Amino acid sequence: MEKQKRVTLGHGAGGRMTQDLIGSLFVPQLKNDILMEMGDSALLRGKSFHGRIAFTTDSFVVTPLFFPGGDIGKLAVNGTINDLAVAGARPLCLSAGFIIEEGLPFDDLRRVVTSMSEACRDGDVQIVAADTKVVEKGKGDGLFVNTSGVGIVNPKARIDPKRVKAGDRILLTGTLGDHGISVFLARQKLGIETDVKSDCAALTPLLLPLVEKFGPDIRFMRDLTRGGLATILNEIAAQGRKSMTIDEESLPVLPGVTSVCEMLGFDPVYLANEGKAVVVVSDEVADDALRMLQRHRLGRNAAMVGGMETPDEGGAKVYMKTPVGGMRLVDPLLEDQLPRIC
Amino acid sequence: MEKQKRVTLGHGAGGRMTQDLIGSLFVPQLKNDILMEMGDSALLRGKSFHGRIAFTTDSFVVTPLFFPGGDIGKLAVNGTINDLAVAGARPLCLSAGFIIEEGLPFDDLRRVVTSMSEACRDGDVQIVAADTKVVEKGKGDGLFVNTSGVGIVNPKARIDPKRVKAGDRILLTGTLGDHGISVFLARQKLGIETDVKSDCAALTPLLLPLVEKFGPDIRFMRDLTRGGLATILNEIAAQGRKSMTIDEESLPVLPGVTSVCEMLGFDPVYLANEGKAVVVVSDEVADDALRMLQRHRLGRNAAMVGGMETPDEGGAKVYMKTPVGGMRLVDPLLEDQLPRIC
Repeated sequence: MEKQKRVTLGHGAGGRMTQDLIGSLFVPQLKNDILMEMGDSALLRGKSFHGRIAFTTDSFVVTPLFFPGGDIGKLAVNGTINDLAVAGARPLCLSAGFIIEEGLPFDDLRRVVTSMSEACRDGDVQIVAADTKVVEKGKGDGLFVNTSGVGIVNPKARIDPKRVKAGDRILLTGTLGDHGISVFLARQKLGIETDVKSDCAALTPLLLPLVEKFGPDIRFMRDLTRGGLATILNEIAAQGRKSMTIDEESLPVLPGVTSVCEMLGFDPVYLANEGKAVVVVSDEVADDALRMLQRHRLGRNAAMVGGMETPDEGGAKVYMKTPVGGMRLVDPLLEDQLPRIC
Repeated sequence: MEKQKRVTLGHGAGGRMTQDLIGSLFVPQLKNDILMEMGDSALLRGKSFHGRIAFTTDSFVVTPLFFPGGDIGKLAVNGTINDLAVAGARPLCLSAGFIIEEGLPFDDLRRVVTSMSEACRDGDVQIVAADTKVVEKGKGDGLFVNTSGVGIVNPKARIDPKRVKAGDRILLTGTLGDHGISVFLARQKLGIETDVKSDCAALTPLLLPLVEKFGPDIRFMRDLTRGGLATILNEIAAQGRKSMTIDEESLPVLPGVTSVCEMLGFDPVYLANEGKAVVVVSDEVADDALRMLQRHRLGRNAAMVGGMETPDEGGAKVYMKTPVGGMRLVDPLLEDQLPRIC
């Protein structure tokens, strides 16, 4: 019982416990129409601006700070860019808030800031507001970074999980689990030899052209972070009130990730990425959209992995067709198998 | 030497060491015209919206989480509202990022979120985007909160430290040091009996009517947080290339704050507030602006505390006229006397 009176690591994992925390504590207090949408970005309308502005925030507590393929700075910039991109918004500017533990080597901080600067250049966005706080040794963990971002939503975008329809197709922009495995191995120092590195990248050049070309046929997009594909598909099913069937054999996973997963008992559908998204599109444009993804460097492993269906009496569910032809139910993540990967 | 290779608490104090950190590390990497303005809010212009949008971020690491007059949640909402207000902007929406240490009692989190909800209601703003992360016990300190905010700048606002002129008057909206002393006493448990409590409040209803009424005659505004009045006046002097003389006798300080300062050797001009601002106004409207401040509940102790002057060859400096008629130079804060008060 004591455990349930206190926050645990599972509450930060992005799965069902996080949803419970948000639902029981944040939602009743902070409720308003925009927060209630629970999207990756809030969409603002106002008489002071045309169209819609997207606004989003994310705190990054990844450990270790540096890992193959990235670091907390690159992650913080790209993570917030991606929350805007999946809303169909072009990033306008970012803020950066640093909470530094006393004793952090300046060289580490410099590496992180340099990496943020490079990620901003690559993502064509600027950090226009920043804040720095320092806490005593033992009261933090090296460095935490918050980034918030403002973006301008493409007027053609109609991205909304409530718009998914039976018959829509589910696209995945690339291989599962690269980021989660990369951070896990960097942290645990298990001595496993692997070429897996984080897929941390800005998804704007991959996703925004889809919105521009296919407009309302792009029903929904979400980047695959905490909780992994399984959790995000369950959220889409619940919010869109549709079931879906995923073909397990169609899921792209790098051989290095597969072998680490088999060794350690992880399931790639619960692992985090930081440069991949799931895209629900109308059946009419699905093939064209997939080809468009595959032509881009960030989408060369993109695949059509399943489709949306009318739910039966049991309600909206996520099913997985296994390679031997069976069907199983896919649950959202409950507690995290890998905490602090972002 | 070792010390200078690592971040220390002084780097987070908001004084000269913070400026050095920003100047040596963040500015060279992240430089862009908007960040370079180094204002409390970044001002954005774009073809997608009329006029100007203000955007700001702040992380809060105050300890303890609860103190007389407020808590980390109220502080986080009002701190970001105030960064927008001093830019002449009406807050449109806020984001909230929570970094929770494993083991934080749910009741504490609930109190903080409730307090944020109340502060939002009082400040007429909504939290539209939120994020929650959890770190292991011993890797945080209960709770850190980041808030970022977007606001719409009043078209009449021309708030810019480069616009201050010799002859302009310096107004202070109320008593110095209430917040810093309140948090310090709550933390140290020295057993000092006092009625001092934090002045944490949203300054929008006090400051925005000034901008609406006096427009460009309001040269500059800044809320008095980390580093206190002395540090902020030095920043205005440096950015506006003007000297100033402050009349020490005119500075409003509550008797309770004065006696704690005398007991413990603190100087109120270096202490933080969270519901006070310094306002530089043209000489022509100074008396009217002061009366307008004094008529508001949050400005009833407002005072005219000094004026701007043409600097002599020594450059822009802040001078203090002492009660016995002497003059002394006021330096910005170097290291903090009271870390983690916001």
